[in-house]
Amino acid sequence: MSGNTFGTLFRITSFGESHGPAIGCVVDGCPPGLELATADIQAELDRRKPGTSRHVTQRREPDEVEILSGVFEGRTTGTPIALLIRNQDQRSKDYGNLADTFRPGHADYSYWQKYGIRDFRGGGRSSARETAVRVAAGAIAKKWLRERHAVEIRGCMTKLGSIEIPISDWSVVDENPFFAADLASVPQLEAAMDALRREGDSIGAQIHVVASGVPVGWGEPVYGRIDAEIAAAMMSINAVKGVEIGAGFASVAQKGSEHGDELTPQGFLSNHAGGIVGGITSGQDILVNLAIKPTSSIRLPRRSIDRQGQPLEVVTHGRHDPCVGIRATPIAEAMLALVLIDQALRHRAQCGDVVCPTPKIPAHP
Amino acid sequence: MSGNTFGTLFRITSFGESHGPAIGCVVDGCPPGLELATADIQAELDRRKPGTSRHVTQRREPDEVEILSGVFEGRTTGTPIALLIRNQDQRSKDYGNLADTFRPGHADYSYWQKYGIRDFRGGGRSSARETAVRVAAGAIAKKWLRERHAVEIRGCMTKLGSIEIPISDWSVVDENPFFAADLASVPQLEAAMDALRREGDSIGAQIHVVASGVPVGWGEPVYGRIDAEIAAAMMSINAVKGVEIGAGFASVAQKGSEHGDELTPQGFLSNHAGGIVGGITSGQDILVNLAIKPTSSIRLPRRSIDRQGQPLEVVTHGRHDPCVGIRATPIAEAMLALVLIDQALRHRAQCGDVVCPTPKIPAHP
Amino acid sequence: MSGNTFGTLFRITSFGESHGPAIGCVVDGCPPGLELATADIQAELDRRKPGTSRHVTQRREPDEVEILSGVFEGRTTGTPIALLIRNQDQRSKDYGNLADTFRPGHADYSYWQKYGIRDFRGGGRSSARETAVRVAAGAIAKKWLRERHAVEIRGCMTKLGSIEIPISDWSVVDENPFFAADLASVPQLEAAMDALRREGDSIGAQIHVVASGVPVGWGEPVYGRIDAEIAAAMMSINAVKGVEIGAGFASVAQKGSEHGDELTPQGFLSNHAGGIVGGITSGQDILVNLAIKPTSSIRLPRRSIDRQGQPLEVVTHGRHDPCVGIRATPIAEAMLALVLIDQALRHRAQCGDVVCPTPKIPAHP
Amino acid sequence: MSGNTFGTLFRITSFGESHGPAIGCVVDGCPPGLELATADIQAELDRRKPGTSRHVTQRREPDEVEILSGVFEGRTTGTPIALLIRNQDQRSKDYGNLADTFRPGHADYSYWQKYGIRDFRGGGRSSARETAVRVAAGAIAKKWLRERHAVEIRGCMTKLGSIEIPISDWSVVDENPFFAADLASVPQLEAAMDALRREGDSIGAQIHVVASGVPVGWGEPVYGRIDAEIAAAMMSINAVKGVEIGAGFASVAQKGSEHGDELTPQGFLSNHAGGIVGGITSGQDILVNLAIKPTSSIRLPRRSIDRQGQPLEVVTHGRHDPCVGIRATPIAEAMLALVLIDQALRHRAQCGDVVCPTPKIPAHP
Repeated sequence: MSGNTFGTLFRITSFGESHGPAIGCVVDGCPPGLELATADIQAELDRRKPGTSRHVTQRREPDEVEILSGVFEGRTTGTPIALLIRNQDQRSKDYGNLADTFRPGHADYSYWQKYGIRDFRGGGRSSARETAVRVAAGAIAKKWLRERHAVEIRGCMTKLGSIEIPISDWSVVDENPFFAADLASVPQLEAAMDALRREGDSIGAQIHVVASGVPVGWGEPVYGRIDAEIAAAMMSINAVKGVEIGAGFASVAQKGSEHGDELTPQGFLSNHAGGIVGGITSGQDILVNLAIKPTSSIRLPRRSIDRQGQPLEVVTHGRHDPCVGIRATPIAEAMLALVLIDQALRHRAQCGDVVCPTPKIPAHP
Repeated sequence: MSGNTFGTLFRITSFGESHGPAIGCVVDGCPPGLELATADIQAELDRRKPGTSRHVTQRREPDEVEILSGVFEGRTTGTPIALLIRNQDQRSKDYGNLADTFRPGHADYSYWQKYGIRDFRGGGRSSARETAVRVAAGAIAKKWLRERHAVEIRGCMTKLGSIEIPISDWSVVDENPFFAADLASVPQLEAAMDALRREGDSIGAQIHVVASGVPVGWGEPVYGRIDAEIAAAMMSINAVKGVEIGAGFASVAQKGSEHGDELTPQGFLSNHAGGIVGGITSGQDILVNLAIKPTSSIRLPRRSIDRQGQPLEVVTHGRHDPCVGIRATPIAEAMLALVLIDQALRHRAQCGDVVCPTPKIPAHP
Repeated sequence: MSGNTFGTLFRITSFGESHGPAIGCVVDGCPPGLELATADIQAELDRRKPGTSRHVTQRREPDEVEILSGVFEGRTTGTPIALLIRNQDQRSKDYGNLADTFRPGHADYSYWQKYGIRDFRGGGRSSARETAVRVAAGAIAKKWLRERHAVEIRGCMTKLGSIEIPISDWSVVDENPFFAADLASVPQLEAAMDALRREGDSIGAQIHVVASGVPVGWGEPVYGRIDAEIAAAMMSINAVKGVEIGAGFASVAQKGSEHGDELTPQGFLSNHAGGIVGGITSGQDILVNLAIKPTSSIRLPRRSIDRQGQPLEVVTHGRHDPCVGIRATPIAEAMLALVLIDQALRHRAQCGDVVCPTPKIPAHP
Repeated sequence: MSGNTFGTLFRITSFGESHGPAIGCVVDGCPPGLELATADIQAELDRRKPGTSRHVTQRREPDEVEILSGVFEGRTTGTPIALLIRNQDQRSKDYGNLADTFRPGHADYSYWQKYGIRDFRGGGRSSARETAVRVAAGAIAKKWLRERHAVEIRGCMTKLGSIEIPISDWSVVDENPFFAADLASVPQLEAAMDALRREGDSIGAQIHVVASGVPVGWGEPVYGRIDAEIAAAMMSINAVKGVEIGAGFASVAQKGSEHGDELTPQGFLSNHAGGIVGGITSGQDILVNLAIKPTSSIRLPRRSIDRQGQPLEVVTHGRHDPCVGIRATPIAEAMLALVLIDQALRHRAQCGDVVCPTPKIPAHP
């Protein structure tokens, strides 16, 4: 299908460019009867929005969402929910000089070759600005998952460049500009970011996302495995270059006697699988890691070519995140929520009648 | 959609259980006029089939494919191509004792909870035996990509447990049982595998896959990004727990001045992106890594439960790959081919008329 | 998507040519736990199979179905169900002279122009032989609908050319070669068909299909309306040229005061809507009519061209149905069943939790 | 999939309720480089909009469309095109009394039972107001078809109740309020409509749509047959109860020697097939008829029930079309355009390389 729709039964269709009139999406397939207000969505958007600290882009976008349809008297009706976010702070003139240039690491060259036409203002469609609509749609998914299935989704940054950030306290994630789950790490992160901004360079990051309380049985082997869809969801986020489930790349060096999670009536004894076995949830926490590359827009000069294929040097001014990974946490949470609600509905479709006599095994704590 | 179809325009729909009468698939959407014989498919199946060395399962399956439709007088007709592989060596009795048991690390428990019913013979649908049909369908995709676009896809094993295998010579990959691109590593790999078999344990592996000659412009942002679909394709392979594109997780510690691939009229100066920028191919080689967990079927005793939820100990006999990663190379190549042909057709659909004036930039060697 | 898959959640993917080795399909998304034996499917196939009377094609095809996967110990497992029917009576030599000719009214010319290649044996993929797999898959759908929802689907012929056939007794439909619901009409139908065979000509027919017991609420407005999907399902049957729901084309001359079905607590007072309002089932019987064109293969000479575009005359010998409409009844029933099961699952996915306080209104008898 | 997306490669996803803030859609998959301005879309919307004569609803909606994305410097970029139409004349108070009532012939009862919640204002999502977005999206499809393939699509009303309207002059269709292709019929139509309004009743209609210049070879047998998709497209329009291709229901009484269109090097000798054979276009005109039921909202009293299931009488006031068929012509044209562009792109995807040596046969005039 055309590439701007995500999901099978709970589907979002996204639109909009970085510097066009608006971005938004249509959410189709939401179950009816869910209480939903603009504030539910705005709360998540505010976590991702630009300009919240000196470590992210200074573009001033209130990212105010309007619900155009699908909600009546405070509840979803089962009809499509259209969400609209008007762009406010489009300084297109910042980009005039880019019309003729391909920025290294950006999608400029590949878009231009593919479509033969390109909205060069701020990356156009390839801008990470599009991810705001994922967060908006994800807010609906998160709410349904929480209310209907008591599923909780949370994320945090676990690496900034080569700085490892431990997960010591989930409750502080929204209290620092890095979505770090460890307040003690924050001064080091701030110092690193301040140094980076002075250099004019950028840096990568690693994000960890967890879904707890997921029932056993979601996922559609063999190609609709839930881990396959999570991988696609995460890799579809701008700048993501790697995805792991559970032990991930560490599995390579593991032996079977170590990796395979043993089962006891009292619970699983480990969770190397990351909550997914055979493409189906096991009832354990779903554990996902993503690798995010450094921002390509930097102030240091880089070699490139222009539309005629002639060599030139590119220096990117404008307002950019020196670490795009910082704002990626709510996006990754949203994408995980979108996969889960879709799989929940698909599971109910096919297996809504199933009664299994075997007791559920508790997750490894 | 129901989970057994892969692809949008070049679609494969797979069926079959490890110990049922047959496995197979329907390939729909293949362009007409492609020369295709059983031998084209059989050659790829023979690379993956069991029993080719002492390091893989000793199940004896000739994996002979029959083309049931879609080919007339040696050419594809544009109608669906059905491929059938009869199972020959089903020792279902090996599995009788498993009917009541959930093997750790296997999908037994999650399938049972999901469907309330389960074909317990050899893993049933969750068996890696299903991957034979991917290789068969992938052979068609590979052939079209090579003949129509001169795209070449190749893969090799780059890690067996903690042993790193350099890529020194692609030509030797099919001349050793490990799909290693370095003959000098083979004795060490053999010794490691022999030791492992004696222990009764298993080990993980890492596979590297490359597509060369891919034109610039394939991929459908934002959710149909080609990297997102590659991630899904790879993660849908049994036992895969991680996927990287280009620099992958190493991007986390990179700076923007290092990661972003510079462009010159003579070519790209690096390929950290792994051939994909903004979800669209750049014309550089597509570079993919996958992490494969150790086989869950091992001879060492493991704790588990039975259908009544009572504790027991599981020891797996039967014929298993001590490293499922060994046979994963042709599967990963096939999945990459399936993503590429699908995106090639989708690109032609939307952008078949595009003429771009800018010259193509050569790939980094 | 590629055109050989039908359905969203209960999906069938069909393959096979009239004179190739086999036809068949993969049924994906069937709920687990349904009792299913070959005989359940064979019973429906036997209603459609050729050679059952002198009024249909004399090709001798036992149409024996083999279940290759998805059923274990007599129950569906939730994994894909592959169905295989080997072709037995391929007299390809009957068609050798057609390789170079386009038969009027047949798909020969359009297939050839589309694909540039064509399996000319008996129509290849365009043959109505493909409809056997629809009947096979439909048998599974019918069984689930009956057992899970007490939905009954039945069909009959209501016109043979200009002969109108009343519906006087549904119980006799399977007791005459025409699927007529009126035994008194049979002698007239036999006489008409015998005369037609002597002439070497063919005739059209009209089929009526009814689904009773359908719950209120199935259907997905606005494009997934259940009437839209029924229309597509029916029009996808070979030779169908028209589809009506409820009053159909008679609605054109109706006034609103006549057409709109009034509701009372005791039940609906009429069923001009044919059981579907706003694209959603109303709980009334679903009523569908289809128009089927006369067979294009006739013994009378017809003007056409050859591959070089030169004029010639075509006379079709071989074994053909002089009225393709005769065997269309089980096919139309199957297609209706396939739409209904798919919508049932989709409804459960989105609205599985809905509790509506208003009592259901009984259907008009 | 969730039911508000239409098409496979050229996809529209629609949203909005009759009396909510807005209606609109996202068009995904449009080829890049098409010149597109708001005026191109507005021209088609103006043909459908309400209030253009005394014979249609007097609701005052300017139906002004805003393009939110996907167009840059006057050309489509290949990214999603979002179209927004704000509702202006929502007299929701007209509908307050309907909250508790189910109008006969309307979707009130089926929506309520399906979703357990319902936007009762003016039919909410089930209102024909949604069809404005189809016309808007269809305008893009029409433009591409005309510019890229010289395909022309036109429609007219051929029956108003029992009045038959001949097609004598296509050029006058937009010059009378009925989309009649015969000015001489207009006085009779006006008289009939005036009488109907006095009665407080409504009437059905029949619409004819034609696509000329369609190349041979579009369509995807067997389930993606172009006639199947046209049938779905037409039946998805509010109030449509029947669809015919070519000879349609008249085929029932035809003989094969009459129906099958003969081919000569100079052209086809007839077009009973309506331009589609075997689900693939033949290069002849595509001919479609639709039956449209009378409006259910009438001023005459009708029996129904309320939410508690109690009997009551309904009289519909407010502003309604006494013949919904009148404004259906541009909608039917739009739906045909949407099917054709989608199939054109799908054809290019699979068969873009095909070269067929046989000359094309001209269409029957």
